[in-house]
Formats: sequence, C-alpha cells, structure tokens
Amino acid sequence: MSASTGRLLALIRTLGETTRAELASTAGLARSTVATQLGQLLSDDLITEGGTAQSTGGRPATLIRFNESAGVVLVADLGATHSRLAVCDFGATPLITEPIEMDIGIGPDAALDRLGEVWERLLAATGKTAADVRGIGLGVPGPVEFAAGRAVHPPIMPGWDGFEIGTELTRRYGVPGLVDNDVNIMALGERSAMIDAPNDMVFVKVGTGIGSGLILGGRIHRGATGTAGDIGHVQIATDGTPCRCGNVGCLEAAAGGAALARELTAAGLDASQSRDVVDLVRSGERFAIHAVRRAGRVIGEALASIVNLLNPTLIVVGGDLAGAGEQLIAGIREVIYQRSTALATHVLEIRTSKLGDHAGVVGAAMMALDRILDPAAVDAALERSG
Amino acid sequence: MSASTGRLLALIRTLGETTRAELASTAGLARSTVATQLGQLLSDDLITEGGTAQSTGGRPATLIRFNESAGVVLVADLGATHSRLAVCDFGATPLITEPIEMDIGIGPDAALDRLGEVWERLLAATGKTAADVRGIGLGVPGPVEFAAGRAVHPPIMPGWDGFEIGTELTRRYGVPGLVDNDVNIMALGERSAMIDAPNDMVFVKVGTGIGSGLILGGRIHRGATGTAGDIGHVQIATDGTPCRCGNVGCLEAAAGGAALARELTAAGLDASQSRDVVDLVRSGERFAIHAVRRAGRVIGEALASIVNLLNPTLIVVGGDLAGAGEQLIAGIREVIYQRSTALATHVLEIRTSKLGDHAGVVGAAMMALDRILDPAAVDAALERSG
Repeated sequence: MSASTGRLLALIRTLGETTRAELASTAGLARSTVATQLGQLLSDDLITEGGTAQSTGGRPATLIRFNESAGVVLVADLGATHSRLAVCDFGATPLITEPIEMDIGIGPDAALDRLGEVWERLLAATGKTAADVRGIGLGVPGPVEFAAGRAVHPPIMPGWDGFEIGTELTRRYGVPGLVDNDVNIMALGERSAMIDAPNDMVFVKVGTGIGSGLILGGRIHRGATGTAGDIGHVQIATDGTPCRCGNVGCLEAAAGGAALARELTAAGLDASQSRDVVDLVRSGERFAIHAVRRAGRVIGEALASIVNLLNPTLIVVGGDLAGAGEQLIAGIREVIYQRSTALATHVLEIRTSKLGDHAGVVGAAMMALDRILDPAAVDAALERSG
Repeated sequence: MSASTGRLLALIRTLGETTRAELASTAGLARSTVATQLGQLLSDDLITEGGTAQSTGGRPATLIRFNESAGVVLVADLGATHSRLAVCDFGATPLITEPIEMDIGIGPDAALDRLGEVWERLLAATGKTAADVRGIGLGVPGPVEFAAGRAVHPPIMPGWDGFEIGTELTRRYGVPGLVDNDVNIMALGERSAMIDAPNDMVFVKVGTGIGSGLILGGRIHRGATGTAGDIGHVQIATDGTPCRCGNVGCLEAAAGGAALARELTAAGLDASQSRDVVDLVRSGERFAIHAVRRAGRVIGEALASIVNLLNPTLIVVGGDLAGAGEQLIAGIREVIYQRSTALATHVLEIRTSKLGDHAGVVGAAMMALDRILDPAAVDAALERSG
C-alpha cells in the first residue's frame, strides 16, 4: 500500500462510515485520486461499499466502511506469570481471548513456542486460518527498544535481554511482528476504545508492581531507552519501606499489589497476590478497604507531580488493583486535587479502565494494525524513536 | 510558500550547507521538483548559491546555503520584572540584545508599547528597517494556549488573562506573532544551539521560582491547558515550608531563588534576589554554597522522578541560579543518580545551559522562524495542540 492510500485508509478507520465526497473534502484530495485509492482498497478487501447516506438533496451517496473482517492479528499481553492471548479482527476487537499461566523466565524461545500453540488453537476456534493472519502484536513486562522490537535490560524477564522479539515473530509467521512495553499497549488499547481520544493521557497500571504508559501529543512517549512511564520507583514521602530495586520509599514498595498483599497477610488475612486484595475489598473486609484507600492516596501523591508536569486530559487506572474500583480511585483523586495546581487539574478526568483485563490485547492489536494499515504513520514514529 | 517548498527549506536549514543532488536524494524528490522549489527560494532570497562542494569526480556541485540575512525577527523573553529583548537574524542569532526592567503587571497594552519602543531602537541600531521584520516571538512567565497565542490564568501576570497576545502582535506589526511560555522557549533555544539535538530533553529554569520546559519526541510538550512543565509546586520530602500557592512542601518554596535569598538574609547575609545568591556563591561565602548545594539536592529529588517518568537524554539547568554552576549541578546529579533507576540514567547527560541569559530570546526567534519558514510543521503542531 502506498503512503497516501494508507493515509486515506487511516481516515476511513477514523471516520468509521463515510462517503466519497466527505473523503475528498476531508483529505483535501481530488475526487479522481480518491476513486483510484478506493479502488485499490476495495480490491484489497480493506473497505466495503454499500447502503446509502441520508440524502441532502441530489443522488444519495454510497457509504464506505472499513472492513474489520479483512483479516486478523494474533496478540498477547505477557506478564511475569499471567498472560492473555487473543485473536483480534481489523477493528482490534478480540474474536476470542484466553488467559494463560506462564513463567516468562522460561525465556523467549520456549515462551514463543507456547504462544504459538495457544494462538493456533484460538485461530482454529474462530474459523480463521493462517492465511488470514496479517500481523502479530506483543506486550512484554519490561522496557523495549521499539524500532528494533527488542527487550532492553528487562528486570523481570530473565533470558530476554537483547532478544529480537519482533524479528523472531516475523521469521515465524511471515507477517510484521510488533513489540512494546505492556503498559504502553494498555494505554494504546484504552485510548482506541474512546470516541473522543485525548492527545495527552496517562495510563497507570496498578498490579503486583506499578507502571504507567504515556500518550503525549497523540503518541506513545517511550523516552531515550524505552523506559519512560516507569513510575514504580519514584520516591514518595513514606516511612521508607525497602524496595526490591535497592532504594527506599519507592511508590511500588508502598502501594503496589505485592506490598498490599504482604500487609494484609501480616494482619492475618489470606492474600498472596493483588487479586486476593481486590477480593477482600469486594467482600467488604474493612482492613483491606483501608489499605487500598491508603494505597490510592500514596499513588495520588506520585500522580499529583505527574499532573503538574504533563498536564494530561485524562488519567486511566488499570491493572488488577483497579478492580477495587472507587476505593482506589477515591484515594487517588483526593490527593491529586489537593496537591496538583488548579490550572493543571481543571480539565482533568480520573477514572478506571473501561477495557479492564482486555486493554493489553486490544492495544497490541492496535499497534500491529497501525503498522499494517498505516505504514507512513509508523515510519514517522520509528524515525522519532530512532 | 507551499508546504513542500517549506519542507525543502527546513531540510536546507537542518543541513546547513548542501547540494542539489543531496537535497533530491535526502528529500526523495525528483531533480526537476527540487529545481523548481529552489528557484522559488532563491527568488524569495531565502537561500544563496555559490562556491563548490568537494568533487567526487565529475563536475563540481554548487553549494546551497540558507540565507540567515534574509530578514529579522523581533523577540522578547519577558519575566515578572526583568526582561530581555533582541533582534535576531534568520539563523536565530541575536544581532543585538538588551535587558530591561519592566513590571509585567502594567498589563499587555502598556507592556507591548514599551517593547515596541525598545525594538524600534534596537532595529535601527542593527541598520535594519521595519520592512526586514518578518515575525515576532514572545516568551511570557505563565501558561499559554499556544494555538490562540493567549495567556491562560497566569498567576504572576495580572491583567494578561485571556489577552490575545499573538493576535495583537500581528495587528501591530503585520507579521506572524507567536507566543509561548518562557521556559518552553528557553528549552527550544537551548536545543536549537546543539549540533546533535536530542529528541527528549528537559530544560529546568531555576530563578526566583522553578519551572521546566519539556521537549518530547522532538517537540515542545504543552499539555491540555498549556501548563505542562510546571514543576515548581511538585511536593518534595522536606520540612513543609508554606508556598505562595497555598500548599506546603513545594519544590519552589524549598529550593527556588526567592526561598534561598530569604534563607541567606535570615542568616544575616545581603541577598534580596536570586542573583545575589549567585554572587555570594561566587565570592566563596560558605553558607551560601551550602544552601545552593542543598537546593540542588532538593531539585534533584524532583528531577529523579521526572527522569524515571520521561527517560530523557538530556537535562539542561538554566535560569539565574544556574550561574552558581557546579555547586548547584553537583547536588542535582547526586540525587538523580542515587534515586533514578539505572535503566533511565545510563544515557542521561545533566549540564548547565550553554546559552545562559540568551536561551529565551534565541528560542523565541526559533519559534517565530519555524512559523515563517516551515508552516507545515507549525500547522501539524497546532493540530496536535488543538
């Protein structure tokens, strides 16, 4: 696909449903150019034509829609021990999804073998075949050099350092293989599900640890070495609990799911991981509610500085602990509105993830689809990150 | 100028000195297209042709250079009480510059009148005329809605709230008038003076107060309402000194120039403002050195979180207090390397501003020049900030 045809397709994906006249005027292209490019997209089966738009007088215009059934992408959102796999259509909608237990420490070859087995089964269940697969999207729990599709010194992914994951996926499947940090794809997924997507948003994942994905100026901000968004080890004003990173006072050590589970266990409650903490909150356990509310305030302390610094429109809280809902968000809101400047918060919205467990796979699909369907935009992103 | 001619000119500005062959291959354009666009740029006097490139066999190629003398821009970096004005050439180099004392609280009309008088005098001193002025660039000490060229709820600019500064400048001078926050233009100025400009950098201004300008993905990040970079009121772990914003524990209240001047005055030293603090440090006053070093550590604490969050390549420290040089930077470095993750700091450079007092006017000139000479890039920026 040429860059200009890619741009037209990107426009059709954004508009959802459109007409030749609207495309020509919105894209600023001659009707004849639009006709040529639509011909190409029709023959590639990437759009469909049919039905008519409400007439404004004159001949009714035929509607053009993006064909979300044109193919599928295989995606996975990998965690240290829990992962989620999916087959998504070209609208990034999961056709089928499955959580699996896998220790990411088995290394890239064994892990990609395992993903391959599950994807094959999921693909068969959707009635699609390998010929329908047009791309692969993967999120991993560590920093990624995006242009190279390579994990870089990932602290919790033994055996993956420097492994060219994207290249290996492309070698195995013969289609583009895209890889990014797990929280970045969650941010992308959450944003793709919004009608009126904000240019500047922060996605905060509160799971075993704490991380964030930044969308700034409409694009994922990855930073110099792919570690941007790493807020788990920012210092907050606490009693100085030691963190696994070797420092004291880290956000993650005070308010992450692992820290909360330890705190509740020490209080005699049954909580070995962050999901147990959420279950206790949901069951009305007062000590658990108190602990999650306090964690929200501690997270709010870190986010208050981020709000002043980045002035986002939206903060989305996801990850396991977001399952605690308003108890966590209330604490976060309380401190952000107390600590951030009024100027920075007057258009700010703070809420939990709408996609929940599926944010990662939807985002991984969007990442792969953007590469397949809008190569010019991705080339620009690679240039920036290069 | 058409968008594509603008892109070619942007390329020539970046390359400094080039040839028709290099332009065609770098821009991916046909030689005939390059010839047409260069003809336009030559007739607009925006480039010069002359001299020859080192031959690689065959006919020696004629060198093409951006014509930095094609015109001038009038610029000003406004502070609450101290401002700096300049006339800059098309290379953003100040031809003449002058600091003035002006209370910004006199309001926009009186302030712009005053700027006009000084600019007129400076312009005459350079031997240029009003016909040479092609744009105006202004930095102001408060949040700006960039697309509208309007100050938005600026806390220390009484009378300017909602005033359409850019529109008024354009009305007065008949050329594009661009306005941004003062620290944003300092960041832009500092970056424009680098040979190998980083995509991700943080400019920290430590003056009376403390602020920052963020360049992310090669562009200024302004945020939802133009307040991005406002780090003066992030909370740091201190004794809880009350801040003018009404909170306690703000960075600015603990480590800004005004706070340091108060601290030294209380100790019996003669320091009414941040420049006095720098003078005392330079004179070897041990209590002042100790106070500035401590302020550096406090600023480092806030920056350590920002390094984890944004993973920049470079932190530049400017503003009056940067005049204290290594005493301030040493404290900043100490805490960043202690508190940020190793992954986030392994390519990080931390240094003082190379442009010093001139960063603002150079950046204001770059902002105006980008608008005049590269309209497509500016349109893209406006679209993002809209």
